[in-house]
Amino acid sequence: MAPTKKVGILGATGTVGQRFILMLADHPVFTIHALGASSRSAGKPYHTAVKWKQSKPIPANVENLEVKACVAEEFKECDVVFSGLDSDVAGDIEMAFLKANLVVFSNAKNYRRDPTVPLIVPTVNTDHFDLIPYQRSVYNQDKGFLITNANCSTTGLMVPLKALQDAFGPMSHILVHTQQAISGAGYPGVPSLDILDNIVPYISGEEEKMEWETSKILGGQDGKQFLPLTNTIVSATCTRVPVIDGHLESVSVKFANGAPSIEQIYDVLDKYTCEAQKLGCHSAPEKAILLNRNEDRPQPRLDRDLHKGQAVTVGRVRPCPVLDIKFMLLVHNTVLGAAGSSVLNAEVAVAKGLI
Amino acid sequence: MAPTKKVGILGATGTVGQRFILMLADHPVFTIHALGASSRSAGKPYHTAVKWKQSKPIPANVENLEVKACVAEEFKECDVVFSGLDSDVAGDIEMAFLKANLVVFSNAKNYRRDPTVPLIVPTVNTDHFDLIPYQRSVYNQDKGFLITNANCSTTGLMVPLKALQDAFGPMSHILVHTQQAISGAGYPGVPSLDILDNIVPYISGEEEKMEWETSKILGGQDGKQFLPLTNTIVSATCTRVPVIDGHLESVSVKFANGAPSIEQIYDVLDKYTCEAQKLGCHSAPEKAILLNRNEDRPQPRLDRDLHKGQAVTVGRVRPCPVLDIKFMLLVHNTVLGAAGSSVLNAEVAVAKGLI
Amino acid sequence: MAPTKKVGILGATGTVGQRFILMLADHPVFTIHALGASSRSAGKPYHTAVKWKQSKPIPANVENLEVKACVAEEFKECDVVFSGLDSDVAGDIEMAFLKANLVVFSNAKNYRRDPTVPLIVPTVNTDHFDLIPYQRSVYNQDKGFLITNANCSTTGLMVPLKALQDAFGPMSHILVHTQQAISGAGYPGVPSLDILDNIVPYISGEEEKMEWETSKILGGQDGKQFLPLTNTIVSATCTRVPVIDGHLESVSVKFANGAPSIEQIYDVLDKYTCEAQKLGCHSAPEKAILLNRNEDRPQPRLDRDLHKGQAVTVGRVRPCPVLDIKFMLLVHNTVLGAAGSSVLNAEVAVAKGLI
Amino acid sequence: MAPTKKVGILGATGTVGQRFILMLADHPVFTIHALGASSRSAGKPYHTAVKWKQSKPIPANVENLEVKACVAEEFKECDVVFSGLDSDVAGDIEMAFLKANLVVFSNAKNYRRDPTVPLIVPTVNTDHFDLIPYQRSVYNQDKGFLITNANCSTTGLMVPLKALQDAFGPMSHILVHTQQAISGAGYPGVPSLDILDNIVPYISGEEEKMEWETSKILGGQDGKQFLPLTNTIVSATCTRVPVIDGHLESVSVKFANGAPSIEQIYDVLDKYTCEAQKLGCHSAPEKAILLNRNEDRPQPRLDRDLHKGQAVTVGRVRPCPVLDIKFMLLVHNTVLGAAGSSVLNAEVAVAKGLI
Repeated sequence: MAPTKKVGILGATGTVGQRFILMLADHPVFTIHALGASSRSAGKPYHTAVKWKQSKPIPANVENLEVKACVAEEFKECDVVFSGLDSDVAGDIEMAFLKANLVVFSNAKNYRRDPTVPLIVPTVNTDHFDLIPYQRSVYNQDKGFLITNANCSTTGLMVPLKALQDAFGPMSHILVHTQQAISGAGYPGVPSLDILDNIVPYISGEEEKMEWETSKILGGQDGKQFLPLTNTIVSATCTRVPVIDGHLESVSVKFANGAPSIEQIYDVLDKYTCEAQKLGCHSAPEKAILLNRNEDRPQPRLDRDLHKGQAVTVGRVRPCPVLDIKFMLLVHNTVLGAAGSSVLNAEVAVAKGLI
Repeated sequence: MAPTKKVGILGATGTVGQRFILMLADHPVFTIHALGASSRSAGKPYHTAVKWKQSKPIPANVENLEVKACVAEEFKECDVVFSGLDSDVAGDIEMAFLKANLVVFSNAKNYRRDPTVPLIVPTVNTDHFDLIPYQRSVYNQDKGFLITNANCSTTGLMVPLKALQDAFGPMSHILVHTQQAISGAGYPGVPSLDILDNIVPYISGEEEKMEWETSKILGGQDGKQFLPLTNTIVSATCTRVPVIDGHLESVSVKFANGAPSIEQIYDVLDKYTCEAQKLGCHSAPEKAILLNRNEDRPQPRLDRDLHKGQAVTVGRVRPCPVLDIKFMLLVHNTVLGAAGSSVLNAEVAVAKGLI
Repeated sequence: MAPTKKVGILGATGTVGQRFILMLADHPVFTIHALGASSRSAGKPYHTAVKWKQSKPIPANVENLEVKACVAEEFKECDVVFSGLDSDVAGDIEMAFLKANLVVFSNAKNYRRDPTVPLIVPTVNTDHFDLIPYQRSVYNQDKGFLITNANCSTTGLMVPLKALQDAFGPMSHILVHTQQAISGAGYPGVPSLDILDNIVPYISGEEEKMEWETSKILGGQDGKQFLPLTNTIVSATCTRVPVIDGHLESVSVKFANGAPSIEQIYDVLDKYTCEAQKLGCHSAPEKAILLNRNEDRPQPRLDRDLHKGQAVTVGRVRPCPVLDIKFMLLVHNTVLGAAGSSVLNAEVAVAKGLI
Repeated sequence: MAPTKKVGILGATGTVGQRFILMLADHPVFTIHALGASSRSAGKPYHTAVKWKQSKPIPANVENLEVKACVAEEFKECDVVFSGLDSDVAGDIEMAFLKANLVVFSNAKNYRRDPTVPLIVPTVNTDHFDLIPYQRSVYNQDKGFLITNANCSTTGLMVPLKALQDAFGPMSHILVHTQQAISGAGYPGVPSLDILDNIVPYISGEEEKMEWETSKILGGQDGKQFLPLTNTIVSATCTRVPVIDGHLESVSVKFANGAPSIEQIYDVLDKYTCEAQKLGCHSAPEKAILLNRNEDRPQPRLDRDLHKGQAVTVGRVRPCPVLDIKFMLLVHNTVLGAAGSSVLNAEVAVAKGLI
């Protein structure tokens, strides 16, 4: 079956854009139709415009595509536009695309807090697509809409917390400490002198994102507005570590209605399924949450690529003397934590008939 | 002024032993008199018995010292014996030395929980030396005694917490997440395949040590027994990271009597002084706590060697939405976190007239 | 088409053995029938005997296989036996298997210099299989035989040198400098304290292996004996670097009959094909030599996995002021440089009707 | 004795400039008088202009120095000016300083090939200072002059080769392979995504520098011009490795007049002394060449800081089957390979009465 949906990629020469290209090069539903980048790259064949940094080569059918400027006119034939733009330009461009009646899935942070824009982790809160009709009415569009991904660290955190919240009710307190891979900072990103034999205990804006995004994603919606959590307090500490890919997170949680047992938690995490799986989406992981009961797992290098990077691996579930329970999770930051979320979100949207 | 106290080093060929040798090679009070190691090494000149792994060469006056077996008879001329023995042999050997009326400063975990043995961080609870007379009475010795260091991660945590407890009263909850350097595991220690481009989210026994030792060290004593904290709850998560030296710790704290302001905390940390400084001990840091107000500090590679590795660097003090405040600290795990604690403890003991 | 050849794996719990299992788990010709390891592991189900260190999980059909002792009787039903044994035990065990009329493909160094045993790089000198009849006659077997792989660094070097020798005649001088990945040392292998922020400029026995093995592999055979090169001098320097997988080698070469141009060399390398490709073997790379003309390639992390790790990537071909030409190559040390060579060698043997 | 020579530092906010500041902060002869940087930094106190990246803090007497623009007028009181400028601006600025009758020691490559400018490795060819009178006559100055350092990798190579050339006569062929630390690329320099779990087998311009500079440095001078070597052929291959500091080099050498024995070479290297030592210069290493006869040395992390980074460590001297002998050396690239060369060169110039 030949892919039927034409897609465009904005920020196609950046690291997120490169990941989009690899994920979409051989996709059953989507076919790469247009690539957008800065005016410096526009007009060039892709392989001369990009500094390719992936361990797989540029797909043959993309190598010579002419890079376009990021203007809606150039992407009007696209059924879906994926945006890997930097936040300093994403705001204006993505809004212009939305107002041109285009469908945009964005990795940028610009519209995550917008009350008309769903912030969706594809294995968590795809019910937030229900707000598309409302969004379309606000912007007076009949076809276009705009969806954002969550921050890479938030994304990983949401998957097990959603499972726990569904099963055991609201959490009153969440305390999370991240050890984030360098690929999260793009390229050139983190200078090697800052991170070899070192840790950087700070990532600009990251802690605020985790603390804020959680309430929107784990919150509900009533078809007309989002209903963020109001009684869940989040405290995040984010650090950068000398790891290529894969964010590791240590999480402590307190439940509003009392603590379940460790085995109840393992059981709930193990049985968790999400809508993207039920809809049979191509990029959905076989399991959204993988449990690893070895005492020294998950580990970034060994676990990040499981289920093509779309699953979250959880381990070390144990009592927390200060809150109720604590555990560790690993998320592939450039797959489920970035391009993989957008692609799976788009697949869900197709399956729901929104595209 | 020539050094006057003869010292012995047990486990002299191991990584802690090598650190002892470098710290004591040119010391104003102590002079290396005897080296002890396993029977496999005994009888050899030190440089042929050791696989030396330090970036400074073996001190000339130690290179050809004959390694002895770890029996008290061989160390009877020593005023002080430092033990870098592994815990599988430290228990019997250190007890034999104590019963031979020798003075032992141990890095091993074996006697840390012993109700007769002080567990001392030299910039924190040197008042615990007050239990030496009691210990001597138990073991019926007039000169010998046994002091233990804390675990490396515990050690770093204790310094700012002691300052905070002294100023603001007891803490009800402490939640700590560590990122620990590979040197903490000794040599050969962590296989490179486990840690390059990776994190290991588990260190055997480490979380329990941090949770237990805190109450003894931050607790008091009445000259006859230790009075551990009973109302301070500690939750620790320990991970291993690809860093050579320097443990980084993220700490969240809740105070029993209400939270001070961030500036009050900075002020208290900045002004903290300890007995080892007041006694003018050679290895005491100029400041026990160094503040770094840059938003991305402390960092292991840049801050671990400050004040010869005997200070703890603290940064990022800020409110914790879940507990009261949170901050980051860095401790040099093989200096203040190991050999440096023993040496400074011994200097304090000399200054107090115990040796 | 179901796989028809039953295979056994010796040293199945080691790092080479784990690679064998992943390569053979879903193979069109071979099916894993028996696993052998030390007596300590024998009798256990595989997943409890192994400390699995791969980023893909243990294949489901292997997980519960009972590990056998490495005795021929246990492997008598196997059409092929792959040996990932350590050299300290490989000598006796592999000879016993050969004498039991079994077919053995070995990664160990023990028989590489044996005048009856072919030393085969599967994309280089598969004509050396012609000596199997001679070997069988020596050991008086009608079915069994023994083939060895080359050392991982030698393997990578041989591929482009074979292409050059075929096209331009013998090389009089070869000077090679390697930067070898830590996975080459197995597990636990290189201690992290030796290699983080460091290079170890020495690998025991490695330089001798490269200097010796080259003459046998690039030499001929007349059906009765090997005809090693006698006029090609090799000088090797081997170092260990903090890279997970992928050996990088810098090579300078002088030709006996005068130097070709750089473009002639690129052309010859680009057009090189080998027998394993012509025979249509499953694990043969599409190209045995990949050229990368970017000035900063090959790089281990970006190029090691190309063509499933069975190709050698070559770049930076340029004049050498001291010899004739110099270039860089990259070989995946645990695939083509180890288990991948054995598997492809076995596929060639099947295609040749030797098994 | 208070320092008597006022010094200026150009490019003071860069990584070389930061090293100059640490080396000169507590120097017996030189005192930091003026700091120069780009117009963006000029006018600011140093600590706000710099992104300090050293593991020692900014010296107290430098912290608040006002940064100047790099114009000669601002440095006219300086007895010596050290330049850590980037090569894109060093050409014009250094020439302007020379023509303003100032004494300049430069790390930049711009004037290394200039026939009037000495290219000096301080432990190798300080006789090249003899060309200062000639240089002054060309530029019509009575006090000022300009001296350049060699490239960091060339510097390390020169020290043992000078010893060998002095003892055994000219070398006909030199083949060198480098593994260079990331600090050699400055800050931000090498992106971490390029070098973690990776090697970059190319450094722009580096191989040409090594091949060219060798002939000038190891060549003579007759008081009026340099007499570069004409019969010594050099072939260099340069790679970047994940090491913080310390360039490791593998060297093969052929002598024009026949090969000495390995022990003769060890002996000559061990006995080598240089003029900087004889003049009693403060920063001269106790030994210019350190031998390490362990088979796995030198290693960057263990050996780079010996003799304050001003010595070159040599090991693994052994026969080279292709040329005559081969060995490995380690040089601290940011000390002897950069700022340390300039400072020691300036000390030599003071001792010779040139300043």
